[in-house]
Amino acid sequence: MPHPSISNYFISLNEAKSLSQSIKIPIEEEEVNIENSYNRILSKDVYSLVNDPPFDNSSMDGYAVIFSDTISATQENPIELEIIDFISAGHPPIKKLTSGSAAKIMTGAPIPEGADSIIMIEKTKEVDGKVLLYCPSFPNYIRLKGENLTKNELILEKGTFLTPHNIGLLATSGHSKISVIKKLKISIISTGDELIPPGLEIKKGQIYESNSYVLEGLIKEIGHIPIRKKAIPDSIEKLRIELNNAALESDLIITSGGVSMGDLDIVRKLMETEGEILFWRIKIKPGSPPLFGLWGETPLFGLPGNPVSSSVVFQMLINPWLKYITNSKGPKEKIIKAKLTEEIKNKKDFLVFPRVLVENNEEGLIAYTKTHQGSGNLRSLTTHNGIAIIYPHIKYEINSQIDVLLL
Amino acid sequence: MPHPSISNYFISLNEAKSLSQSIKIPIEEEEVNIENSYNRILSKDVYSLVNDPPFDNSSMDGYAVIFSDTISATQENPIELEIIDFISAGHPPIKKLTSGSAAKIMTGAPIPEGADSIIMIEKTKEVDGKVLLYCPSFPNYIRLKGENLTKNELILEKGTFLTPHNIGLLATSGHSKISVIKKLKISIISTGDELIPPGLEIKKGQIYESNSYVLEGLIKEIGHIPIRKKAIPDSIEKLRIELNNAALESDLIITSGGVSMGDLDIVRKLMETEGEILFWRIKIKPGSPPLFGLWGETPLFGLPGNPVSSSVVFQMLINPWLKYITNSKGPKEKIIKAKLTEEIKNKKDFLVFPRVLVENNEEGLIAYTKTHQGSGNLRSLTTHNGIAIIYPHIKYEINSQIDVLLL
Repeated sequence: MPHPSISNYFISLNEAKSLSQSIKIPIEEEEVNIENSYNRILSKDVYSLVNDPPFDNSSMDGYAVIFSDTISATQENPIELEIIDFISAGHPPIKKLTSGSAAKIMTGAPIPEGADSIIMIEKTKEVDGKVLLYCPSFPNYIRLKGENLTKNELILEKGTFLTPHNIGLLATSGHSKISVIKKLKISIISTGDELIPPGLEIKKGQIYESNSYVLEGLIKEIGHIPIRKKAIPDSIEKLRIELNNAALESDLIITSGGVSMGDLDIVRKLMETEGEILFWRIKIKPGSPPLFGLWGETPLFGLPGNPVSSSVVFQMLINPWLKYITNSKGPKEKIIKAKLTEEIKNKKDFLVFPRVLVENNEEGLIAYTKTHQGSGNLRSLTTHNGIAIIYPHIKYEINSQIDVLLL
Repeated sequence: MPHPSISNYFISLNEAKSLSQSIKIPIEEEEVNIENSYNRILSKDVYSLVNDPPFDNSSMDGYAVIFSDTISATQENPIELEIIDFISAGHPPIKKLTSGSAAKIMTGAPIPEGADSIIMIEKTKEVDGKVLLYCPSFPNYIRLKGENLTKNELILEKGTFLTPHNIGLLATSGHSKISVIKKLKISIISTGDELIPPGLEIKKGQIYESNSYVLEGLIKEIGHIPIRKKAIPDSIEKLRIELNNAALESDLIITSGGVSMGDLDIVRKLMETEGEILFWRIKIKPGSPPLFGLWGETPLFGLPGNPVSSSVVFQMLINPWLKYITNSKGPKEKIIKAKLTEEIKNKKDFLVFPRVLVENNEEGLIAYTKTHQGSGNLRSLTTHNGIAIIYPHIKYEINSQIDVLLL
């Protein structure tokens, strides 16, 4: 039974996304050295400061020559050219090439004026300051100025998630510092009298708290700062204190547990009476109980306590929210298609997220479920390598193509 | 022309892998708290310290009842049971259920002795200390002790790369600390007179050094410690000093540039004369020039200077080496199959690694090349999202299935 004050009760995931995305928080920028930009989000478009390559250069060790000089060269009748220069990378050539001459050139070295082609060193022989060519040079092995990047070209858009290759591209284009989104601080509060931290001795009725560790890792993975709090018992007073503390030190609060219908669902109760709830419950399985709202001015996602549900809701709802408010395009989710080798039941009006194992076979990717799918079974997220996305309006039979988010 | 002392010249990638893997280094372990174990590698098998769940518990808010008491319940003729207890998570039940009684129970709370089923709160009504049931309870909504994990069961094998979900599983099974492989320190040394660091003004003949930044990121991604050195010019003396320093402070040395046939290929020259080369050149494209050997007792991979080659060789050769010597099963490479929408040329005896864009269409995944594939064009690794693996003995036509390593 929904509380009368909650108008958005048991809505679709898309509605939940758009309601949560109506709440924004201040996003700040900061400048960092590119070596510290791994897994950060660009806050400004980045343009190349140079052409890449910055100058025509040789892609081979060999000789820079004039193509027309070399046309008649054969194994039997090699062409002889005078070596007038040795050009290595990092050292601009001084001499201009004229007909009858060649310059020895190393990979990456600038092409001398007058030359229009490179012949590989393997096709030549050096004798007494002269080089013998055993075949024509062809107009090749020259990497042209700007063929990869042109100066002032947009190379990485605002919102790009900085992978190792993106960072390399920043270096190539001359940037040593760039502007990125300041990492968000995200508090994680697990609730429940039954929770004890791993490492302590377990007593009857208790379980080890694990959700905060999963959420901490998922937050690290997308480049923000998790603040993992000690789990609190089912006490409205303790929760109020924790939420107030969390609101002071973080940009977002994530709770785990206490959002269901029960008498002790303290997160829901406190948010109903002293916070503001924008929606409660979503038509997804697992993970239907979450709520979203504001504690004071701080957005709060209340996740269910079941470990699979908690992780799925983070990935399907909170991650999209974080990307939206930081205007971030990454990290890019790897959503692939695979062929089902078993039937999977859809559910009317619901998105269902079974954990599946994706494997290659000769014809492409296949997917199937392997272990127990209970929403309390965290192991279903470690023994499978994907989360299937099962839409309500599609019937899934053997050989149906399904969408899978790779884990 | 190979140097006479190098017997393994221009070998296959598999030969290169097995030669490099014949060199081992000491691998140490350390104990870390699980909250610090993100992206680390387990050095010992891990067994569960508990059953999960540790006790039979309710998966719903409702009433614990005896199923046989409830069989005749209907909407018109509800069954009435006396409520003898309220059981919440974290609090073991004290009273034993007997016929005619029920215990109100919250999600996660232990099942009381005598009860064999749970009825959802929505199917009941509470009146004056009694509960009315409008349908039979069915023997359901009980999560059985140990249904996810049994005590002393192997839950994560030695070599597991610790993802957020794996860390959660460590918590669930009671571990607060675990043994992991000590991170390896990996020095990165770029070589070349033409290289200047991004941020400085570029002069004719110079380019911005980028490979060390890409390699630094790739090393972070797999959980080791990169030590990125300033690029050095083409000087045997400077290289010798740098290699000696690197050998003192790191477990592995990666160089970039200077491994080709040219007169200034100082890494190859110095390794030939003062180091030990196990192989030089591999039949892959891009990335054929690498060498592998020992500088003193420190293994050294000499990567080519072209940025695409350097990254590809890291991913195809160094990453497998690091996994092998640390006995690590992760991070798991996401190798998928996709259907080619264009022809791609194979190359006799060579593995070819074109960068491709993988996309979903209705029937599954497709792959095609988008931008300029030059091995100097780092952008081919940022505008594509995969590296295709093109085998020499297969002809690749439109609609062929290809293997792609997702980036």
